[in-house]
Amino acid sequence: MNKPPHVYLVGAGPGDPELLTVKASRLLREADVVVYDRLVSAEILTMIPSGTAKFYVGKAAGHHHMTQDEINALLVQLARAGKTRIVRLKGGDPLIFDRGSEEARYLHEQGIPFSIVPGITSASACTTYAGIPLTHRGLARSVRMVTGHCQKNRPLDLNWNSLADPDTTLVVYMGLGHLQEIATRLQHAGLSGGTPAAIIENGTHSDQRRCLTTLAQLPEQARVQVFTTPSLIVIGRVVALAKELEWRQTSDHEQAFAEILGQSIQAEA
Amino acid sequence: MNKPPHVYLVGAGPGDPELLTVKASRLLREADVVVYDRLVSAEILTMIPSGTAKFYVGKAAGHHHMTQDEINALLVQLARAGKTRIVRLKGGDPLIFDRGSEEARYLHEQGIPFSIVPGITSASACTTYAGIPLTHRGLARSVRMVTGHCQKNRPLDLNWNSLADPDTTLVVYMGLGHLQEIATRLQHAGLSGGTPAAIIENGTHSDQRRCLTTLAQLPEQARVQVFTTPSLIVIGRVVALAKELEWRQTSDHEQAFAEILGQSIQAEA
Repeated sequence: MNKPPHVYLVGAGPGDPELLTVKASRLLREADVVVYDRLVSAEILTMIPSGTAKFYVGKAAGHHHMTQDEINALLVQLARAGKTRIVRLKGGDPLIFDRGSEEARYLHEQGIPFSIVPGITSASACTTYAGIPLTHRGLARSVRMVTGHCQKNRPLDLNWNSLADPDTTLVVYMGLGHLQEIATRLQHAGLSGGTPAAIIENGTHSDQRRCLTTLAQLPEQARVQVFTTPSLIVIGRVVALAKELEWRQTSDHEQAFAEILGQSIQAEA
Repeated sequence: MNKPPHVYLVGAGPGDPELLTVKASRLLREADVVVYDRLVSAEILTMIPSGTAKFYVGKAAGHHHMTQDEINALLVQLARAGKTRIVRLKGGDPLIFDRGSEEARYLHEQGIPFSIVPGITSASACTTYAGIPLTHRGLARSVRMVTGHCQKNRPLDLNWNSLADPDTTLVVYMGLGHLQEIATRLQHAGLSGGTPAAIIENGTHSDQRRCLTTLAQLPEQARVQVFTTPSLIVIGRVVALAKELEWRQTSDHEQAFAEILGQSIQAEA
């Protein structure tokens, strides 16, 4: 009897291949076909066996990417074509600021069995690799994750009064393009301009860069230091611990990274 | 020359051993000594080679557990005793509702090199294994994580008005003991009693149980169905997707689990 098709919606985490889960790593080895996104790191893609079929469905500069409907249709098409282990690989976690739940719903409607494998989301991994805890006794007893992504040329649809909470660590995914609006609105809503804040570019990658600054200074620092996507924004008192909790310099595995980080810290001073 | 000591603060994730990161899995194999917590699953502990020294520092029923100061001192003592690969293994993620940042600070003060390895936090993995996305277009555009843990016999010190946001998925760690207070306060702050809500017990473990209910019904359901710790509470419209996104029944790997889940679903009906 033929094995039935199965789609695995798999989180690849933020980039460092060692942050893949054991399950994701196994599924990449066992896959018949891998359908992957723009935010999956090149190092992770090299872990896919050379004989495995690969489909890129992310946005390439200057090219139109596949729509969500087209991606949904591709997954179903692969399942109906008799592929039994279809891995849909996504940056970060499939169910946090991603369309994983929409893909899963479509597979459910089409009667195609699926599994979901969580990945470490950027809010957790990128901050850890930048020495920033999301919670810390006396500094933050709550974590808030929002996205700064919205329809083009429209203001962000966020509840600023609710976000301006000094006891909460606020993490903004895809917020680089709206930093001025974010910084201004949070201050107007009552959050101090002196609240510690950070920008983390290419978090967990070998070329990770971070900037430690304040809420008021975020937009200018992003401009002067030329931060680019993907960057994560972190706002809250926990950012003040980043110097003490910096560990990538001291690790015996990432010596090559220390020099880059050193330059970044000098740039902050 | 002797290798210098190094402490690895490692997140073990919520329980399923396949959700360990590749890095955590490697460090467990390479460790000289593992210092572990109450919330690290038994299956993960079996992955530690039999020759590796192990220290349990969690709370055992009826026994006094080690204080944070004692754990800090143990880590430093092991480093000074010449251990070069000291793994401090923690349930979930070391920097989310955990004392990982306090341990890292102490190691920094004592001049002992350390690294931090993020783990998948319960808010992400337990919801995924229960078929609940943390965000979904049109249902939740923000995620909030809080802890329901507080000093004994004292009310929770949370900003209920800020938490009562229908556009946000609210995840409460360690909230089982305060469910009545949580449900009442959120409703008083304006969140509808009909808001979908879930309790997930032993998330990602083979004996995971979940209850799909509403905010108003949370306390009674927890009592009637006898939920026990560790349980995660999820409140928000995304919980309504849990039936469609249920995947552990359909997975080809977890057939043994389907029966238990089936019983749980019948209990919900």
